[in-house]
Amino acid sequence: MKTNKHLYAVILAGGSGTRFWPLSRHLYPKQLLRIMGEETLIQQTMRRVLRCVPASRVLISTTPAQADSIRFQLGKWKDQLRDNFVIEPEARNTAPAIALAAMELVRRDPDAMMLVLPADHIIKGDQRFQAAVALGTMLATQGHLVTFGVRPIRPETGYGYIQPNRRARLATRARLVGYAVARFVEKPDTTTAARYLRSGNYYWNSGIFVWRASTILDEIARYQPAVARPLQKIGAGLKSGVVAGQAARAYRRLTPVSIDQGVMERSSRAAMIPVDFAWSDVGNWSSLDEVAPRDRSGNAVSGNVVDLGSHGSIVYADRRLVATIGLADMVVVDTPDATLVCPKARSQDVRKVVEILKKQGAPEHLEHRTVFRPWGSYTVLEEGPGYKVKRVTVNPGGRLSLQLHHRRSEHWVVIQGKARVTCGPRVFDLGVGQSTGVPKETRHRLENPRSEPLEIIEVQNGPYLGEDDIVRFSDDYGRR
Amino acid sequence: MKTNKHLYAVILAGGSGTRFWPLSRHLYPKQLLRIMGEETLIQQTMRRVLRCVPASRVLISTTPAQADSIRFQLGKWKDQLRDNFVIEPEARNTAPAIALAAMELVRRDPDAMMLVLPADHIIKGDQRFQAAVALGTMLATQGHLVTFGVRPIRPETGYGYIQPNRRARLATRARLVGYAVARFVEKPDTTTAARYLRSGNYYWNSGIFVWRASTILDEIARYQPAVARPLQKIGAGLKSGVVAGQAARAYRRLTPVSIDQGVMERSSRAAMIPVDFAWSDVGNWSSLDEVAPRDRSGNAVSGNVVDLGSHGSIVYADRRLVATIGLADMVVVDTPDATLVCPKARSQDVRKVVEILKKQGAPEHLEHRTVFRPWGSYTVLEEGPGYKVKRVTVNPGGRLSLQLHHRRSEHWVVIQGKARVTCGPRVFDLGVGQSTGVPKETRHRLENPRSEPLEIIEVQNGPYLGEDDIVRFSDDYGRR
Repeated sequence: MKTNKHLYAVILAGGSGTRFWPLSRHLYPKQLLRIMGEETLIQQTMRRVLRCVPASRVLISTTPAQADSIRFQLGKWKDQLRDNFVIEPEARNTAPAIALAAMELVRRDPDAMMLVLPADHIIKGDQRFQAAVALGTMLATQGHLVTFGVRPIRPETGYGYIQPNRRARLATRARLVGYAVARFVEKPDTTTAARYLRSGNYYWNSGIFVWRASTILDEIARYQPAVARPLQKIGAGLKSGVVAGQAARAYRRLTPVSIDQGVMERSSRAAMIPVDFAWSDVGNWSSLDEVAPRDRSGNAVSGNVVDLGSHGSIVYADRRLVATIGLADMVVVDTPDATLVCPKARSQDVRKVVEILKKQGAPEHLEHRTVFRPWGSYTVLEEGPGYKVKRVTVNPGGRLSLQLHHRRSEHWVVIQGKARVTCGPRVFDLGVGQSTGVPKETRHRLENPRSEPLEIIEVQNGPYLGEDDIVRFSDDYGRR
Repeated sequence: MKTNKHLYAVILAGGSGTRFWPLSRHLYPKQLLRIMGEETLIQQTMRRVLRCVPASRVLISTTPAQADSIRFQLGKWKDQLRDNFVIEPEARNTAPAIALAAMELVRRDPDAMMLVLPADHIIKGDQRFQAAVALGTMLATQGHLVTFGVRPIRPETGYGYIQPNRRARLATRARLVGYAVARFVEKPDTTTAARYLRSGNYYWNSGIFVWRASTILDEIARYQPAVARPLQKIGAGLKSGVVAGQAARAYRRLTPVSIDQGVMERSSRAAMIPVDFAWSDVGNWSSLDEVAPRDRSGNAVSGNVVDLGSHGSIVYADRRLVATIGLADMVVVDTPDATLVCPKARSQDVRKVVEILKKQGAPEHLEHRTVFRPWGSYTVLEEGPGYKVKRVTVNPGGRLSLQLHHRRSEHWVVIQGKARVTCGPRVFDLGVGQSTGVPKETRHRLENPRSEPLEIIEVQNGPYLGEDDIVRFSDDYGRR
């Protein structure tokens, strides 16, 4: 397929991760998870859009907290994506995020069209996806705000429903038809949803859109002037995709509003293409039923699991052992620091657990034991009074900032690869089985000079071991 | 109560731990667990028998694999118990273990009487227990093999049932009556068990006994000559409670036989005292219902648990977070390296999981991440290719053997206390935040010279990291 040279893709990757807890965390949301198959959801989304546009025309819309993890996961395309991150200072729902990306695109190409899609959906049937986008792009050039409609299979109350105007066929291509939108109803009650389902003339809003960047900006200005006005100033100050300083403060003050309720429900330009690919927004653990491969007893099992006679259950383990006996329609999710057990039918209440943890200040809602950084990652193996033990992985060629800590000393033992260590005035290399100590108040740096990963065990000692006890003198990644 | 000066207690502490997995392990069975209250089951058992005999007259019957952990848990009485361990080379069920202990007692005191009780039962009502033992001791002096009968509350098929001969009242004391035994039936089928329950004239065999040591040896010789003959030789070679060399090989060849089936069912000397204390052998997770305190929803919850609306469930966590939603009559047990989830009604199948793990050679059936040694303990924090990270705790005044490893180097970082390190020819002290490296093929020793515990993080590097890569030159605990 010859792709439209004005078409760009905008992957919305700013969502937070409450409903797939404990696999997702506030700082490690669903899009970063390997929920199905070898690749994470954002990697699958990236591959999907590459059928429609080259990587250099993919924009990633995200927040500062997630940018490092996403850059790591999309490392394969790091050169093409280098300048393509649009980073919101803070998530403000989809309308501001889309406006920001649209302004960036108009700056690059006044005729830019944008395919907007969440980073964390599962779609099966990439060819049909591609065909739908092609028809959508055609309608977008004509000034439509194009949505993609999925045929409903249950009276879901969490989605928007779209009724097409069957008498207003806008275009046809590759067995697909685009209609004008008759009605757009966000999150109906159960009775209404059931009626829509029976009628056969309502579609779920997939949350995927195509439009001209300038058109969506016009419509946001028309229907959400309170958001659009400050955004014009904010967008003008956008540098390399980052909103900084006063503009960031203004962005944080924006009222969160979704593009669906804020614009699509109101706009007369809305069009809809009923699609024929399989789609799931994998909204909670039980929705894996729609997409995950299951064994003969209807279980979706992964990781180090020993099961005796369960059925209809989702058991998600990693390296730790999980033994299950006789479970019926249950969800068991095990991670290094937290385990969830609940009936499938209660999956939607997982967010309540996350709310409780947040109120308690429990670290398990916020992040995993493994945290990704631009230079690699670290895993907390144990914390106790006065000490913390981490395994630190430094990517080939990566290096941490030149830094010092006021309140802790560190000891490093190399367990894989070669480490280049700066400690005070000295620079030296350590191989596997070699170690060094870094006293507090001493400038130091850890670096991987080789093309293999470097792994060390770090033992920290001190009265205060927070990540914020750090003074950075120089950093390859612009951090302070 | 004035205690009989010929009375000894023998705590049977050789059981293996399959039914409380993952909290129990093959090398860390139920008796070592803190299942109810502040103390572990063997500690509770020790306190109970101290109402009847002084600590110097308590014998611990166990196996080499468990002796260190038991000595650690009974450390409060270590001086009195020093020479009171009778260590079977390998568990051979109760008859050989009891015979061995009886031979040791007869050697000490030809008139010895022995109160025999498993280390892992829960009893509530220590005064009534004491009264029952007093009456039992009286009957034992008259040559009876005294059992204690518990009134059955369900048609349990896993226990032995005892019918007293109501016309043969042997003695009465403190509202208790001792009867001759009419019948002794081991593990009846469900129909029979239900009939016994209805009849009101059968009692569960509690597995607790009192008899004269010489009497039980006579009865074992009469009913189990194939066990008794080799045991006479083995017992003659018993030194400081340890069966070594050829005697150990002979012991391992003994056919395992229980005292119940092997002797009690057959002996005409059997007597039974119906008891009035609450008793549970806590045979599996669901039996906690009988003894554990529960919340208003009938849940027994401990550890770091967040629950939303569960009822009738057992949720056992430790430091890791476990979140449960809407569970009904489930068991969830979480440990650092393994998690179990099953309906209460399937608790008895936990042993099948353990069998599978054993066949797979999975380490999770064998021991915990934390392993107790005579000098303290260690916890494996992480293992990977070529490295292992441990936290090592050395008790005040404790020291590891002088040792070397052929295939690994070690690095030690002190996180608490003071370490005295021997490394090659040097001996030096390290404080918190200090570290040292031990190259392979180097004699070394770690020692805690202080009265506070010492804790270090140990990072091992090498191609082989098994515990058996150790050459011991000198050891305070006689290990080779």
